[in-house]
Amino acid sequence: MHIEKNQEIHLLNRPEGMPLPENFELVTVPVNEIGEGEVLVKNNWMSVDPYMRGRMIDRESYIAPFALGKVLDGGAIGEVIESNNPAFSVGSKVAHMSGWREYFISDGKDLQPLPASPIPEQAFLGVLGMPGMTAYTGLLTIGELKKGDNVFVSAASGAVGSIVCQIAKLKGCYVVGSVGSDVKAEYLKHELGVDAVINYKESQDLTADLAKACPNGIDVYFENVGGAHLEAALNVMNDHGRIAVCGMIDQYNATEPVPGPTNLGQIIVKKLKLQGFIVFEHWDNYPTFVQQMGQWIQEGTISYKETVYQGIESAPEAFIGLFTGKNTGKMLVKLG
Amino acid sequence: MHIEKNQEIHLLNRPEGMPLPENFELVTVPVNEIGEGEVLVKNNWMSVDPYMRGRMIDRESYIAPFALGKVLDGGAIGEVIESNNPAFSVGSKVAHMSGWREYFISDGKDLQPLPASPIPEQAFLGVLGMPGMTAYTGLLTIGELKKGDNVFVSAASGAVGSIVCQIAKLKGCYVVGSVGSDVKAEYLKHELGVDAVINYKESQDLTADLAKACPNGIDVYFENVGGAHLEAALNVMNDHGRIAVCGMIDQYNATEPVPGPTNLGQIIVKKLKLQGFIVFEHWDNYPTFVQQMGQWIQEGTISYKETVYQGIESAPEAFIGLFTGKNTGKMLVKLG
Repeated sequence: MHIEKNQEIHLLNRPEGMPLPENFELVTVPVNEIGEGEVLVKNNWMSVDPYMRGRMIDRESYIAPFALGKVLDGGAIGEVIESNNPAFSVGSKVAHMSGWREYFISDGKDLQPLPASPIPEQAFLGVLGMPGMTAYTGLLTIGELKKGDNVFVSAASGAVGSIVCQIAKLKGCYVVGSVGSDVKAEYLKHELGVDAVINYKESQDLTADLAKACPNGIDVYFENVGGAHLEAALNVMNDHGRIAVCGMIDQYNATEPVPGPTNLGQIIVKKLKLQGFIVFEHWDNYPTFVQQMGQWIQEGTISYKETVYQGIESAPEAFIGLFTGKNTGKMLVKLG
Repeated sequence: MHIEKNQEIHLLNRPEGMPLPENFELVTVPVNEIGEGEVLVKNNWMSVDPYMRGRMIDRESYIAPFALGKVLDGGAIGEVIESNNPAFSVGSKVAHMSGWREYFISDGKDLQPLPASPIPEQAFLGVLGMPGMTAYTGLLTIGELKKGDNVFVSAASGAVGSIVCQIAKLKGCYVVGSVGSDVKAEYLKHELGVDAVINYKESQDLTADLAKACPNGIDVYFENVGGAHLEAALNVMNDHGRIAVCGMIDQYNATEPVPGPTNLGQIIVKKLKLQGFIVFEHWDNYPTFVQQMGQWIQEGTISYKETVYQGIESAPEAFIGLFTGKNTGKMLVKLG
């Protein structure tokens, strides 16, 4: 079938500092008939994630920058609505990286069939997808979590942080999270069972508040923020602590170089390990993760939240909202 | 025997910024007759090391701060000149932590007999002692050195750095060192066989110079300096690089907090591991190390240099010289 009114979001120009609606353009691009071996996919859900900010900068990195005047991409869940490919029947659900658009044609190589699951499909963009796998890998593999550890999580109400908090709790740890609003603090305390919460926007002295929240220090810091959070964590870390460096969202929109913490000497004094990671390098473990996480969700051991924007046209707003505290849990855009 | 004229160095007041001669005091303290089970030790050599600067600050750390008005301490080599302890015969050589003084009485518990060795005794304060063991542990255990790695070493002509360079070379690595003078650069190139050297004092752009010196990037950075060196190394590191964080001498004399590098995000992008360490936690491996290093020295595979000050009264000057580039290789004070 020919889709006349497929809408997609292009990157019009590169953001300087905080991304603005003017950096994006909603474009209508018809989608042609599928050819031999191809399928037509209609997207139901698309993901916006902080790491996409890095791809808007024109530089070498672990993933190529977005091109100007072209459709963006990112994780999405779609449904095959027409198929010339025996591997994908009409009606099958697929996960893929062709988000930021309503429809697209694929030869199937970039599509992963969703496993049969009673859990709603969009969870495969969050708790059962890249963010959940990031939490699991960062905490257990990079952070080398042990039962009884004292764990600090920054951006603790986000798609990754909220799962980190819960895995740490179910592993028998003392868990402290930092968030940017009282509503998020309540969510952590009352829904995620976190032991103490810091609203960093109200903190006059993050080191003092963190030390108070962590009376036995920090053994594992799950780093999503950077800057003052990293400095405070370094001050409160215990000897032989591990810092899983997942993100530094504090710096993604910086227009000038932001100096690092003044106390990196703590790495020596406390014999710390800081380790960065990219979840895709650990994707061999995804089947193990998805089985385990699916079980935790169905048992009710792990819960998850979604913040949902409606319609492809709201995708830029959803993305910008990641940097202004608009989401609790996974930020999603529902299409169609 | 009673020693009337034992001289020792006391910490008179705590340095602010660069240590000054006025921070130290030469004091004459008689040493009494030894009691039952005790020995009298006459020191032949004492060590001054950058880590001692940290102990001059009154703060909690992995090792207690030096007390004001009391004798300093640190690694030294002495000879037993009188003994009431059957474990130590007169004439035996011992390594211990009671430096900064000419004579002292010990019950023997703090004395390690020097192994029989054709290598001069003061080497046990350098290449065969703590600095050599630091180089070996940091490079092999913390830095996880592999054959063919590209290695960068800062403070590369020092007691630790000069040994790191040589171990990396004999393990089949490409090695780049940074130093603060042309004389030291010549030493690295012509005596240690290092592949490229940077005189950081003459560099206008440390990242550019380091990138040029390391055409295949950096797999292992042995960090002795911090600050601009760490920033440049982060820029030039390869994916999955390891940074063994041994010291940050750049900051030991800072009077105000020194901001860290602006590019810590590279830890994520390049999936780096930074790990701090204190060599004493790895001391179980000392026998293995000393056997291996002794063999390398006797084979001529590894060489070492010493910078020697004469007399206990010159110890403060030797110590201060560590921060002003006065030493090539191990800085030592010869006593008596």
